[in-house]
Amino acid sequence: MSTTGKQLFTTLESNSRLTVAIEDVRFPDPTGNQVLVKMEAAPINPSDLAILTGAADLENAEYSPGKYVAQMPEPFNTGSKARHGLKLPAGNEGAGTVVATGEGEMAKALMGQRVACVPGNAYSQYCIAEAAMCLPLGDYTVEDGASGFVNPMTALGFVENAKLDGQNAILHTVGASNLGQMLTRICNEDGIGLVNIVRKEEQVELLQKLGATHVVNSSADGFREQLRSAIDDTGAFYGFDPIGGGQSVDTVFKAMEQVAVGKMSEFSRYGSNQQKRMFIYGRLDVSPTILSPSYGFGWTLSGWLLFPFLQSVGMETMGRMRKRVLDNLTTTFASHYKKRVSLEEMLTKDAVTDYRAMKTGEKYLVMPWK
Amino acid sequence: MSTTGKQLFTTLESNSRLTVAIEDVRFPDPTGNQVLVKMEAAPINPSDLAILTGAADLENAEYSPGKYVAQMPEPFNTGSKARHGLKLPAGNEGAGTVVATGEGEMAKALMGQRVACVPGNAYSQYCIAEAAMCLPLGDYTVEDGASGFVNPMTALGFVENAKLDGQNAILHTVGASNLGQMLTRICNEDGIGLVNIVRKEEQVELLQKLGATHVVNSSADGFREQLRSAIDDTGAFYGFDPIGGGQSVDTVFKAMEQVAVGKMSEFSRYGSNQQKRMFIYGRLDVSPTILSPSYGFGWTLSGWLLFPFLQSVGMETMGRMRKRVLDNLTTTFASHYKKRVSLEEMLTKDAVTDYRAMKTGEKYLVMPWK
Repeated sequence: MSTTGKQLFTTLESNSRLTVAIEDVRFPDPTGNQVLVKMEAAPINPSDLAILTGAADLENAEYSPGKYVAQMPEPFNTGSKARHGLKLPAGNEGAGTVVATGEGEMAKALMGQRVACVPGNAYSQYCIAEAAMCLPLGDYTVEDGASGFVNPMTALGFVENAKLDGQNAILHTVGASNLGQMLTRICNEDGIGLVNIVRKEEQVELLQKLGATHVVNSSADGFREQLRSAIDDTGAFYGFDPIGGGQSVDTVFKAMEQVAVGKMSEFSRYGSNQQKRMFIYGRLDVSPTILSPSYGFGWTLSGWLLFPFLQSVGMETMGRMRKRVLDNLTTTFASHYKKRVSLEEMLTKDAVTDYRAMKTGEKYLVMPWK
Repeated sequence: MSTTGKQLFTTLESNSRLTVAIEDVRFPDPTGNQVLVKMEAAPINPSDLAILTGAADLENAEYSPGKYVAQMPEPFNTGSKARHGLKLPAGNEGAGTVVATGEGEMAKALMGQRVACVPGNAYSQYCIAEAAMCLPLGDYTVEDGASGFVNPMTALGFVENAKLDGQNAILHTVGASNLGQMLTRICNEDGIGLVNIVRKEEQVELLQKLGATHVVNSSADGFREQLRSAIDDTGAFYGFDPIGGGQSVDTVFKAMEQVAVGKMSEFSRYGSNQQKRMFIYGRLDVSPTILSPSYGFGWTLSGWLLFPFLQSVGMETMGRMRKRVLDNLTTTFASHYKKRVSLEEMLTKDAVTDYRAMKTGEKYLVMPWK
């Protein structure tokens, strides 16, 4: 038996031409503890966009049915040298039905079930996935489960990481995102302090409705004072940032240090002893990260990725996290979609331009059988 | 009994006027385990300059005997708000003779001895120091001991920190500095790999004479290739940088990632899994730190300071480190001085301009009784 179907590929050539296109492919039979999933719904997350569109010039791209060809500007083309000439799949996660399995017991137990999975090629009619990474959805729909991994596990991962580091408060620089809303609910449930930074007044209200107590609007007058006050109230000297470029982290470190210095009785040329810790987990802004010399030496900044984190905590913790996600998939960890598109529709100018903008609350769902 | 003598103070006003001047002061009697040290020699380290001169306009300052008044440009004046109006002492470390002690046993045992110490006001004829932080110099001269703390313990601290983190190679971005030379000797003695970055060909030779095997010259053709090759040879994905501003750390992270990616069999949009770790331990460049989005998410950058590090390792490790410094004070940990100046001489235009330039191998020694 062999299965054929449509799958999306993204290819960047060294001459800076990016081709994103649907192709007919033949899928291998699952072996061992692999399963073959008929993929029914897959979200477009910010983490998918890096490889799907990157910084490509979408305005002047050539669009044809099931395909577009765009130019990748510098320095992004040269910066992507490692992928030049490679035809890459895309789509971190999705949900569908297991239609074939390998001979492994774990795989066979999933036959016929609806599962959420993280195959890395979810913009496809079929995917091979590892049974151990599949989450059986029970009575949930594929749409409930499609975004059941990346955002829920990342938001839970922040809280796990904070607890491991002895913290009981977190700062998040893009509070109103889908992930930020989940983080707000998790922190409420777990009694973890949370400082949410947002960019608009309506996002303040949105988060307050979810029970957030410390939401500061970076567009409002007195933002810096409010940020300091929120850090002081919660003790959040530990935070996560999906922006990466510019001064997003710098602004936070400055505010944290000012709060700490305000509690010191003596001046120190080296700044406060308060350890300040930030993690960059995304690159919504691909410009360089700017760190000014204004918060002493008591700070640490790291990149943060979900899979290395999950590897570091081990299977037991990961199992506990996944159970929590499954138990609360349509409440704490619910995702909402602006639009549902087929594989072909996701490659139209309107769609690409819209989801690349990554506006808060405007997530797309790809339905490969639509 | 009360002791009087000359001491240097540095005062920055909110109107951006920096006054550095010698004053006559009365020193308190030592109590408990304090000792009063007649300070005979104190080095001017880069770490002293932040508070001593900072970014002040030394060219247009007013100089008079034992005093200068300079303007502090923006953004440095506003950035130093925490010290506005405070009259601060300066001089992290030095050596001299204990001339009075508190009633504590530890203090009394030091009476009459030559000691190295870290009083924080070493540009002074007398200092109060904690007996526990004094290093009795035995047969060494005060000049041998004057720089016996900051650079030796920092260089040893890097190696201790690397070993604690399971590393057996270090990268250092200013290899030819006094500290860099010590680090070269320590790494040779301990069998730790070391990548030294220097800026001049003669510094390559200097370090090679000390036994360095991997010295790369950032001014030379093929610098980046040589840096990658040195990282690959040594496995140094862990380093220390005293520059801070600009792209010093960025250049290193890029090279580390390129080495790691070169060993990968498959492309990953998230970069390599190789953890890359850098520490900024100084600010020779006070411009912002620039981190480009070109080495994935597997990196961590921290500030690093000696005293918090020593606190974190505890008294036993610190005692072992200090013994090693004392046993090798004129060999592994030797410092050399370009000039010896009195308190008054250190405030002349020629002297201030010269030591603020922080040229490699041109350290000044202040002799408060000269």
